[in-house]
Amino acid sequence: MPLSWKVICSDSRARAGEVKTSRGVIETPAFMPVGTQGTVKTMSPEELQDIGVKIILSNTYHLYLRPGAELIAEAGGLHKFMHWDLPILTDSGGFQVFSLSPLRKVEEKGVTFRSHIDGSTHFFSPEKAIEVQELLGSDIIMPLDQVVPYPCSYEEAREAMQRSIRWAARCKDRHQKSKQQALFGIIQGGIFPDLREKSTRELVKMNFPGYAIGGLSVGEPKESMYNIIESIVPFLPDDKPRYLMGVGSPDALIEGVKRGLDLFDCVLPTRIARNSRVMVPQGYLNLRNADYARDFRPIDEDCSCYTCRHYSRAYLRHLLKANEILGLRLTTHHNIHFLINFMAEMRCSIKENKFEQFYEQFWHTFKVAT
Amino acid sequence: MPLSWKVICSDSRARAGEVKTSRGVIETPAFMPVGTQGTVKTMSPEELQDIGVKIILSNTYHLYLRPGAELIAEAGGLHKFMHWDLPILTDSGGFQVFSLSPLRKVEEKGVTFRSHIDGSTHFFSPEKAIEVQELLGSDIIMPLDQVVPYPCSYEEAREAMQRSIRWAARCKDRHQKSKQQALFGIIQGGIFPDLREKSTRELVKMNFPGYAIGGLSVGEPKESMYNIIESIVPFLPDDKPRYLMGVGSPDALIEGVKRGLDLFDCVLPTRIARNSRVMVPQGYLNLRNADYARDFRPIDEDCSCYTCRHYSRAYLRHLLKANEILGLRLTTHHNIHFLINFMAEMRCSIKENKFEQFYEQFWHTFKVAT
Repeated sequence: MPLSWKVICSDSRARAGEVKTSRGVIETPAFMPVGTQGTVKTMSPEELQDIGVKIILSNTYHLYLRPGAELIAEAGGLHKFMHWDLPILTDSGGFQVFSLSPLRKVEEKGVTFRSHIDGSTHFFSPEKAIEVQELLGSDIIMPLDQVVPYPCSYEEAREAMQRSIRWAARCKDRHQKSKQQALFGIIQGGIFPDLREKSTRELVKMNFPGYAIGGLSVGEPKESMYNIIESIVPFLPDDKPRYLMGVGSPDALIEGVKRGLDLFDCVLPTRIARNSRVMVPQGYLNLRNADYARDFRPIDEDCSCYTCRHYSRAYLRHLLKANEILGLRLTTHHNIHFLINFMAEMRCSIKENKFEQFYEQFWHTFKVAT
Repeated sequence: MPLSWKVICSDSRARAGEVKTSRGVIETPAFMPVGTQGTVKTMSPEELQDIGVKIILSNTYHLYLRPGAELIAEAGGLHKFMHWDLPILTDSGGFQVFSLSPLRKVEEKGVTFRSHIDGSTHFFSPEKAIEVQELLGSDIIMPLDQVVPYPCSYEEAREAMQRSIRWAARCKDRHQKSKQQALFGIIQGGIFPDLREKSTRELVKMNFPGYAIGGLSVGEPKESMYNIIESIVPFLPDDKPRYLMGVGSPDALIEGVKRGLDLFDCVLPTRIARNSRVMVPQGYLNLRNADYARDFRPIDEDCSCYTCRHYSRAYLRHLLKANEILGLRLTTHHNIHFLINFMAEMRCSIKENKFEQFYEQFWHTFKVAT
């Protein structure tokens, strides 16, 4: 088996677990930083590992278009190409095809789309998505799915959900040939609880080594997202890891963990860092704000990250205002450290049966504003 | 004395020496990477120190305009502000006033110029240049000088040279108040050997702890630059370090060392790195070139830098084509390592009395093309 899972302990619905792969163990709840193009933007692999990152996500759609999956296979696979020897999860490209491609045509056999880089036409079938991920050599791979926008009609969501199930089955068939990678299932169904339940039940029947919740955090209110998670979790087996795709704000992470989810990924911490926004227990600071011009304190006096140990808000503001790359490195470093540390604290509280207190304390401190 | 100097040994005119400051020893010949805005672009201080960088240069003009010298003084000085505890040399702002400011008016009392950032009007006198550098707290400081463009008339070069000498005297007077910093003299005189000789003789009379050659590498042919250096060096005392400003190509560095110079700075290695160009013993490679798309070798198989130990040309090309910041970090890292290592090799060859062989070997391998 390319992947094994165990729950170390749980506290109400929240779980502390362990995902084992041949490249390393991931303690959960875990946050996976995103390395869209084969690099977590601004960061070196060593820096990520120093922070405690145990797994990253990379995007099949982007790597397939540039530099190409065959080239990466020639280089010895994605791990070697990018100098990252811990686990990598790749998505299938489905989400990007539906969010980035300027034109696309969905048929039962697959989806035709245009490159957002040069406009060239490409075709992804469920089988092709698996083949591309085999070339990349990632540890956890995803089936091609059809993602619907928010809002969308019940009928649209139902058809896409059903097609995603048929495509998942085809991905599983194609994947029989390779047992080096763990193929998860992706639950779809928009914001309709009965469709989500149906999708979950069908995928669980196929017995994947892990289940992802897709198609959320696409513009729906957070309450809808939490309701949808609650409509799914009761139908998921305890003995498989659960992965909420595309979520990375502290509030959504803690709400996901509270509802029994284990794995998360999002561009949020790295993207907002490049926009001068950094995470603190109270929410977010925008370091370009004039208030910080002569503020010689670190971003967060209680933070032990490299950035907070050596640099002031005033220096970071100077770097960001002057468009200096070191500014983007330092804010990114802090945000990733913040989330990795946040997940570790949640895990700790679960193991000590104090998750409820941790949750209360979080909401006492955190203000969503900014 | 804030600075001491000794020649360890010399080989013909080339010298291996040691500059001692209260913040550390600089073995020469030495190259100083440039951190224009209080950061060597893309790099962390730890990375620079790992490479072996012992001193960096930062630009008074830029820091004065943004974030402001008073702010840096409030932060505890430039070293603390930017988290760099080894020596820093700051220039006086003279070169930038004459190359970056859209409008300027030179009078005997000083120079009025406009900010290249927001167009605001500022005035620098020789005294003010020293005061700003005191606020920054750098270890080696420079007097305000008047730089002439290339080409320029003899008369223009003569007047600017003479004014620079008068300004140097005023800087020295103002600097008497502070003995924490070492104030060098800057030799001017365009491409006119007699003006350069005159400038050198006058400055040497003032007894500075080090002498810089300014106003070169501003567009003149390299042969002119080498001739000018030769018209200066005979009039410089052996017992002071000699600094060639704004030079950083391997060919010009070796020609400078051959002519008895010790210190060098330039944006070249970092700037070309951000333009995808990397240094190799043969010259330069442009990593965006399609030839490297499937080239899985490092930039230089004999290089021991972080980039060459872990990444292929193909991966670097991918990062650069995809505008990924890690690409700029890795090429910058390599180029700085290349020059630091190159200076160390020159020093070694001088100490072994093999500089001439090193020089021959260099020119046997190096092709200026690209």
